[in-house]
Amino acid sequence: MVSTPDSLPQPGQPQTRLRAAVIGAGYWGPNLARNFKSGPDWELAAIVDMDLARAQKIAGPLGDVPVYPGLAELLDSTEVDAVAIATPARTHHVVALQALEAGKHVLVEKPLAASRELGLQMVDLAADRGLTLMADHTYCYTPAALKIRQLVADGELGDILFIDSVRINLGLVQPDVDVFWDLAPHDLSVIDFIMPGGLRPDTVAAHGADPLGTGKSCVGHLTFALPNNAMAHINVNWLSPTKIRRMVIGGSKRTLVWDDLNPQQRLSVYDRGVNFEKVSTTPAQRTAQAISYRLGDTWSPALPEKEALGLMVAEFAASIREGRPSRTSGAAGLRVLNVLEAASRSLADNGEQSFVAHGNVQLEGIR
Amino acid sequence: MVSTPDSLPQPGQPQTRLRAAVIGAGYWGPNLARNFKSGPDWELAAIVDMDLARAQKIAGPLGDVPVYPGLAELLDSTEVDAVAIATPARTHHVVALQALEAGKHVLVEKPLAASRELGLQMVDLAADRGLTLMADHTYCYTPAALKIRQLVADGELGDILFIDSVRINLGLVQPDVDVFWDLAPHDLSVIDFIMPGGLRPDTVAAHGADPLGTGKSCVGHLTFALPNNAMAHINVNWLSPTKIRRMVIGGSKRTLVWDDLNPQQRLSVYDRGVNFEKVSTTPAQRTAQAISYRLGDTWSPALPEKEALGLMVAEFAASIREGRPSRTSGAAGLRVLNVLEAASRSLADNGEQSFVAHGNVQLEGIR
Amino acid sequence: MVSTPDSLPQPGQPQTRLRAAVIGAGYWGPNLARNFKSGPDWELAAIVDMDLARAQKIAGPLGDVPVYPGLAELLDSTEVDAVAIATPARTHHVVALQALEAGKHVLVEKPLAASRELGLQMVDLAADRGLTLMADHTYCYTPAALKIRQLVADGELGDILFIDSVRINLGLVQPDVDVFWDLAPHDLSVIDFIMPGGLRPDTVAAHGADPLGTGKSCVGHLTFALPNNAMAHINVNWLSPTKIRRMVIGGSKRTLVWDDLNPQQRLSVYDRGVNFEKVSTTPAQRTAQAISYRLGDTWSPALPEKEALGLMVAEFAASIREGRPSRTSGAAGLRVLNVLEAASRSLADNGEQSFVAHGNVQLEGIR
Amino acid sequence: MVSTPDSLPQPGQPQTRLRAAVIGAGYWGPNLARNFKSGPDWELAAIVDMDLARAQKIAGPLGDVPVYPGLAELLDSTEVDAVAIATPARTHHVVALQALEAGKHVLVEKPLAASRELGLQMVDLAADRGLTLMADHTYCYTPAALKIRQLVADGELGDILFIDSVRINLGLVQPDVDVFWDLAPHDLSVIDFIMPGGLRPDTVAAHGADPLGTGKSCVGHLTFALPNNAMAHINVNWLSPTKIRRMVIGGSKRTLVWDDLNPQQRLSVYDRGVNFEKVSTTPAQRTAQAISYRLGDTWSPALPEKEALGLMVAEFAASIREGRPSRTSGAAGLRVLNVLEAASRSLADNGEQSFVAHGNVQLEGIR
Repeated sequence: MVSTPDSLPQPGQPQTRLRAAVIGAGYWGPNLARNFKSGPDWELAAIVDMDLARAQKIAGPLGDVPVYPGLAELLDSTEVDAVAIATPARTHHVVALQALEAGKHVLVEKPLAASRELGLQMVDLAADRGLTLMADHTYCYTPAALKIRQLVADGELGDILFIDSVRINLGLVQPDVDVFWDLAPHDLSVIDFIMPGGLRPDTVAAHGADPLGTGKSCVGHLTFALPNNAMAHINVNWLSPTKIRRMVIGGSKRTLVWDDLNPQQRLSVYDRGVNFEKVSTTPAQRTAQAISYRLGDTWSPALPEKEALGLMVAEFAASIREGRPSRTSGAAGLRVLNVLEAASRSLADNGEQSFVAHGNVQLEGIR
Repeated sequence: MVSTPDSLPQPGQPQTRLRAAVIGAGYWGPNLARNFKSGPDWELAAIVDMDLARAQKIAGPLGDVPVYPGLAELLDSTEVDAVAIATPARTHHVVALQALEAGKHVLVEKPLAASRELGLQMVDLAADRGLTLMADHTYCYTPAALKIRQLVADGELGDILFIDSVRINLGLVQPDVDVFWDLAPHDLSVIDFIMPGGLRPDTVAAHGADPLGTGKSCVGHLTFALPNNAMAHINVNWLSPTKIRRMVIGGSKRTLVWDDLNPQQRLSVYDRGVNFEKVSTTPAQRTAQAISYRLGDTWSPALPEKEALGLMVAEFAASIREGRPSRTSGAAGLRVLNVLEAASRSLADNGEQSFVAHGNVQLEGIR
Repeated sequence: MVSTPDSLPQPGQPQTRLRAAVIGAGYWGPNLARNFKSGPDWELAAIVDMDLARAQKIAGPLGDVPVYPGLAELLDSTEVDAVAIATPARTHHVVALQALEAGKHVLVEKPLAASRELGLQMVDLAADRGLTLMADHTYCYTPAALKIRQLVADGELGDILFIDSVRINLGLVQPDVDVFWDLAPHDLSVIDFIMPGGLRPDTVAAHGADPLGTGKSCVGHLTFALPNNAMAHINVNWLSPTKIRRMVIGGSKRTLVWDDLNPQQRLSVYDRGVNFEKVSTTPAQRTAQAISYRLGDTWSPALPEKEALGLMVAEFAASIREGRPSRTSGAAGLRVLNVLEAASRSLADNGEQSFVAHGNVQLEGIR
Repeated sequence: MVSTPDSLPQPGQPQTRLRAAVIGAGYWGPNLARNFKSGPDWELAAIVDMDLARAQKIAGPLGDVPVYPGLAELLDSTEVDAVAIATPARTHHVVALQALEAGKHVLVEKPLAASRELGLQMVDLAADRGLTLMADHTYCYTPAALKIRQLVADGELGDILFIDSVRINLGLVQPDVDVFWDLAPHDLSVIDFIMPGGLRPDTVAAHGADPLGTGKSCVGHLTFALPNNAMAHINVNWLSPTKIRRMVIGGSKRTLVWDDLNPQQRLSVYDRGVNFEKVSTTPAQRTAQAISYRLGDTWSPALPEKEALGLMVAEFAASIREGRPSRTSGAAGLRVLNVLEAASRSLADNGEQSFVAHGNVQLEGIR
């Protein structure tokens, strides 16, 4: 049977729609605008872009939504409950602070900010004002990731033994960020989403290479420990002629493979593994006696055909209405930044373990 | 057209066959015995194993080859030119030294020895005596690896940008070695074989995990630099329910994927990649202007159906007859040990870069 | 290198754009409208649909294109050079005749008409009036099909030995047509497109099944002879839980596989096959002596990323301007109908070979 | 969990081993000999081949089993309970009759005989003498086929809607038989094995091609009806550069795909399909209202790693001991011949439906 991610907010009959403006009409903005427009929770109130023609190009087909050249002009002219920021990463902080100061809830495209420090300011301000700050970790709202989160939470995989995520393809060499900052936020946000305790490694080690001399890493490997002596590894690569999007989550009971480029079998759950009984004898005996293998069935759960972005904007509305942190809160965005910054430091230090700054406990309750 | 690895020794009409004994009748010995038996270069003179019944079980079907309980008994009783050692790794050193002292050429199953120090003694002794010491790096003699070596040497891939090798499956947790020592020798020996300068990283970093508490790493990642700012990464894993044997070799001209579990298309050569012209302007301009993409054809060379072990024992004979180092010489086996030992140190040091001891230049000419 | 289908009309600088109206705003019409709008050859002059609201829904975002409730209203109000018919198949004939009578060039969605007889009238009328009648055989304009046509024409595959086309998935059981009429036109039009002499079998045999009792075949197999003792087989199926879109074209020199659901390797050309020399000895000797196998490389040509519909509307314009039959002319559409009708007769006759009516030779020169 | 085909005879503690001789030391005989040797039910008593050296080559490694140049010599010299015939197909009949006359149980490699008539004589004689005659339909004893038979019998697939079997590769053009007789027995024997009522079509239609002029079909398609308006299709091809071994069994509840070349997921069971409720309204309404789709999970049962031939010889022993027909009895072999002969007639008649002779009801109880 098709499992529905039923703990997610379902489309209901909201009394009144919330009003949202999309800031940034480049690559991602149109997708956000379309989803604010089509869902039951939102009214798309405006498109904002310095390039008004570009804003108009989106706004026209969506029913002549008003356009503004900047956030100030928007705030002067119309009432909105929330803004969704899809501008370049280096501007997220400025725009978000301005919006939060004006009392608006804020959704921010990944990464939350260009640095941990800036992200922390955003999170703090949102907490001070009692506003929702949400990270647009879109992959977390795919039916596959929602199913994985549920399986992990239900204990179907047992203890997590390892996570291995590969995200490689022939990609654009980005002008401002390296391959870690470009691609790894996807993997990190999903790990944050599915691990019961979130993404909280003490240290990370990053290894990269720039064989073309572009001035930044184009190939990268990131490793860090997970609870209970498990480990995570993320491989990102802009130079691979073959495209792979695959995450393996090895568990003590079952192992799950998410192959996002195989629409016919995106998730496979293997009831196979190694059983290792810890018995109190000598190491040699223990090893010899206590290992066995399971070779059970494979199961591929059916997934509902739902657009991740639609579920994401619904969660944004629900978190505002219910006054609770969203599932991919600003704090989640910050946890991803924490790891990315530590990765950059490790990279500069030739792969040495780099401590991940986690901030203070206050953050926990915030949204 | 099918390319023949024609620089390899081809079966000829040798005046006299060389005589070989196989030491060790466990897992690998029977394969060696069968190939010494069937090829044109060798006469299989004896099988040696403490367990004579086990030796007999191989020797019978191969034409009642004589069996002996030990190397001493073999040397006392019959004349051989060479021995092939397929005993447990910790005994390679003792048996090899004994054979070399007796003036026999020696082939050793991987890994060459249980430590770099012991391997170095073997290499030195063989050099002193003018004998062939060869590492049984079987994968190097597969048609796929021979083809890759040729393509790299011919410049078909251009400069190597990255190598990524994944060797994971539900594997036996070994009693005496961790997953690095069990599986990575295959990847390392192939990299040594195909890289024009061999396997000579200055440092390596290893990250592993033992989530089942077996007392050794069951999941591992190894990274090291390759010449010209390229990097290599090896992923080994005993706990994966899916089996993957794939090496990607990214080049500036083309990228090659070796998928050893896809017999219908083991090698794929992608004429795709990123072109990056280094031009002498500001970094921002350079990045913006000089990157382009190639999306060319994919080509899968036909490979001859030849058994790697057969080609390997032929190379053993040729290296003896021609008085030259074999393609997978003792020095090659030592280079693999160098990296494995450094990996173990890195693992103990929490992933810190660990220097690889390379020994002295004298080694170069030896066989 | 990426091969360009360079004998296709390339976007040029036409003096004046041709004016087209799209008739039918259902499933396919919007795609046609978008391509008439975006290419350099056409001006999208109107959308016609009885349901004006539906027409408007397409027309608005494309720049407020005028809408009309019927062809008569269109012809009364505005000047067009051509119409593209995307109405239900049973109405193609009426609309096309009306448009041709009014002197308009006509593009018709597949199948050309609901019967051979009706299709023949359309072809005859277009010939009489000197107008272009073109079948929208979209698949023929995919980069894959264009490449195949070129490879066949260049003799790269040698003589065609067999064609096997599988088009199966969990599909809509159509209310009015069986699985042959729903799916096989795609395969038949491609075979017509790539075979040098087009689709001209003398007879066809069809076998089908209706295991759910829907009143029409849901599973079907169609076989017919190709020139030189070769054969074609088409498998269509609405009840398959796995989706396959694969055509194999076996040739005496090479064999090509088109796997349309594998975007990373859509075309594979295998330089493998059986060589059979016909020698003038006894049959037994001949068989024993003259068969050999080739096991050569596999090659996957890169394909340009072009939308088939864009190339199709460009060809429509070129055929009008140059006064020549289009590559998928009305006669091609008729050849597909000829086979479908014969298939239906064979199906009714329990799979007996059914003659394919080919009409008279006059048809050849027409457009 | 791994399902065990537990209704198959399990290795037990037989009081005495049965004695078997293998007739024919060519391609298949060694495999039979090895399995008679290694199982608990049998004693391998002799190898028979006109070419005694060839017989000796097998007999030696198996423990110096006696060899004989012919069946007569065997029967004169030693006592056996059964013979396994692995000689060329045209000699099966003569050898089998001779053995049955001598009171021996008989196992025959596929096809049972060179014609239906000869096969019928073998079946009749075995029935007269109360001896086991068994067809070596090896594929039926693979863990995959055993699992499929069990799933069908348990009703897990619901009613069978269609069976589609593809068995294509670059194969040897056989000197004496066409591609139907060479490859289709595998598919037919499996269909006989898994269909509750066995393989009993009233008619079959065969379409083939000989594009190389070898004098026999090298490409073939076979279709026939299954109970309840379902249909079967078998595609065999010697000229395909890609190898496919795939059988799809579409059911009203679930659909199963057996991909024999994918060892990591040989069987996939899709809980997907079309639901069609037959309601007593007008056809148009019925179609519109009553069709729905299921898109459920996919399940890949784990299969035990057992050699089919081992299970087959165990079944041979069990059928002898229990005095019952084996699961792949002579009658099953005859049903396969019935279809092959009808296919040959259909082929000669240009694909016309050809009646399948089924013989008389007496056959049912025989073994």
